[in-house]
Amino acid sequence: MTTRSRFSARLDLENGRVDMSHGAGGRAMAQLIDELFKQALDNEWLSQGNDQALFSVPPGRLVMSTDAHVVSPLFFPGGDIGSLAVHGTINDVAMSGARPLHLAASFVLEEGFPLADLARIVASLAQAAREAGVAIVTGDTKVVERGKGDGVFITTTGIGVVPEGIAISGDRARPGDVILINGHIGDHGIAILSQRENLGFETVIQSDSAALHGLIADMIAAVPDIHCLRDPTRGGLATTLNELAQQSGVGMRIRETDIPVREAVSAACELLGLDPAYVANEGKLVAICPADRAETLLATMRAHPLGAQAAIIGEVVEDPLGFVQMQTRFGGERLLDWLAGEQLPRIC
Amino acid sequence: MTTRSRFSARLDLENGRVDMSHGAGGRAMAQLIDELFKQALDNEWLSQGNDQALFSVPPGRLVMSTDAHVVSPLFFPGGDIGSLAVHGTINDVAMSGARPLHLAASFVLEEGFPLADLARIVASLAQAAREAGVAIVTGDTKVVERGKGDGVFITTTGIGVVPEGIAISGDRARPGDVILINGHIGDHGIAILSQRENLGFETVIQSDSAALHGLIADMIAAVPDIHCLRDPTRGGLATTLNELAQQSGVGMRIRETDIPVREAVSAACELLGLDPAYVANEGKLVAICPADRAETLLATMRAHPLGAQAAIIGEVVEDPLGFVQMQTRFGGERLLDWLAGEQLPRIC
Repeated sequence: MTTRSRFSARLDLENGRVDMSHGAGGRAMAQLIDELFKQALDNEWLSQGNDQALFSVPPGRLVMSTDAHVVSPLFFPGGDIGSLAVHGTINDVAMSGARPLHLAASFVLEEGFPLADLARIVASLAQAAREAGVAIVTGDTKVVERGKGDGVFITTTGIGVVPEGIAISGDRARPGDVILINGHIGDHGIAILSQRENLGFETVIQSDSAALHGLIADMIAAVPDIHCLRDPTRGGLATTLNELAQQSGVGMRIRETDIPVREAVSAACELLGLDPAYVANEGKLVAICPADRAETLLATMRAHPLGAQAAIIGEVVEDPLGFVQMQTRFGGERLLDWLAGEQLPRIC
Repeated sequence: MTTRSRFSARLDLENGRVDMSHGAGGRAMAQLIDELFKQALDNEWLSQGNDQALFSVPPGRLVMSTDAHVVSPLFFPGGDIGSLAVHGTINDVAMSGARPLHLAASFVLEEGFPLADLARIVASLAQAAREAGVAIVTGDTKVVERGKGDGVFITTTGIGVVPEGIAISGDRARPGDVILINGHIGDHGIAILSQRENLGFETVIQSDSAALHGLIADMIAAVPDIHCLRDPTRGGLATTLNELAQQSGVGMRIRETDIPVREAVSAACELLGLDPAYVANEGKLVAICPADRAETLLATMRAHPLGAQAAIIGEVVEDPLGFVQMQTRFGGERLLDWLAGEQLPRIC
């Protein structure tokens, strides 16, 4: 659709700002969508120009997942709210074993937000979607008054197709199963925090934000009987393990020394009084599989760039109370409880 | 999932308020989801307890649509942000002729927002979904600091199944086609505005917010060859007609005297200097069909409670420039242009 001729002057993407008319449904909104969103996201579904996208799906099982993204700051080492909104929802879809199919994106913009920043975010979102091979097929834009929002919030919703014979769910962990992770924990949370507090660590810690569906496709091909997959985002590894233990009605034993943590993250956590097990990740997954498939799964994960530092970190045990115990680096045992209270607000 | 035992005390739904920990991914968030959201929305998909919902779909064509809802005030005559978020997205899905299947809902909550208001909104959202026969199968909750949001924003995303043989799209209007609407225009916008400005009209004008998929199913059964359907929300009837004219490369001629407007809405518009053709609706649709099917379609619409005041309002004409002309009540002609600027911010 080339509708530029409708508008007297092009959007000023250098110095312009979002104003209330960009959300009013009229000419200004049409211009914002045409010149900023469609330019970046161009695909056959958006070009349908309707309030909904139409596409064919193979028969079978679908999954659907949605996530609001309110990360602050909007730009951080290793990503921004645009790429994060794509990775976060692709990962939630993929953790069922599904192949992500399409994404929808809705934006809540604050009046006065620079169009240049919005263009940068939409370009990043478009690039992340392209790299993942998943199109943004439909979207929406609303504007709220200055002081009623915070720059931009993005909700992405994804759907995906679950392959035949795959049954991955948080309630499938069984005593004897092995627990794996695909790499270092805590990178995303510390990357955000270091920006926010202007901490100026010697090493710039990058967010691990990444789309994991390619890694998961390899894992499923090698070990179709993976029992659980979940991404340890808000609440970190500790909270995710507790969720899975609760949902499956089992306990877990993990070994602190086997959990990969970068030295810089470990040092930052020590300085800030944080436990890396509770710090958010955006490119990590916890996998649980039968013990006799664990070595195969580990080798498959390590063969993928997003799993090079994968490790076996513990086992599922019998425990109807669903406790997660950690063997500490000093040989003791401690309970790894749910995150209580608030550690790092607006991390994703 | 009954996980209440995890929490020391139940949420205080009378006097409690949203705090940052409700978005942190840990125990407080789990409690909010269990005791407030799951209680209200309970269904088999949410009970899966995963970060995504799994379901089967028939083979064929799906549609997907997303809408952020930022309406202010949150509660208004005839609805609230909860029911609106359900109706708005169901309608966007249904305007393709699709049968709505499932919804996802994501919430951005402002720190300090009363839990009692949140519970009321979620109950209303749940009731609207139940009445429409469409489940909220997955969701997400984030919290932003006081002054960085405005109570609650809700993004809903819907998917639906398009029946065989249906091809409804904004680019299908043809010269000679007839344009219909299912009832009075402007009710929603004036209902919101009267609340916001405390205008205290003699008559309380109710929003027309409603899910239109039942009406549309009847319309399609009677006239499978409907060419276009679109809901005139932001920007009102005038903007929707311009969108369709632009997309189809046609002109339109409508008659002001044939457009249903309630007397109270007409009076309010006059007082406020608004044109009802630009005021938002949330339970209205514009339908365009071949001339020889128009009377059948009109009769079918009038037989449904949500189409009792349906009317034929004009015709599609040849015009590559895509102008919408209105014959005024005084016999003159005027151009009904796109909404320019901002008329009523945060109407949906």
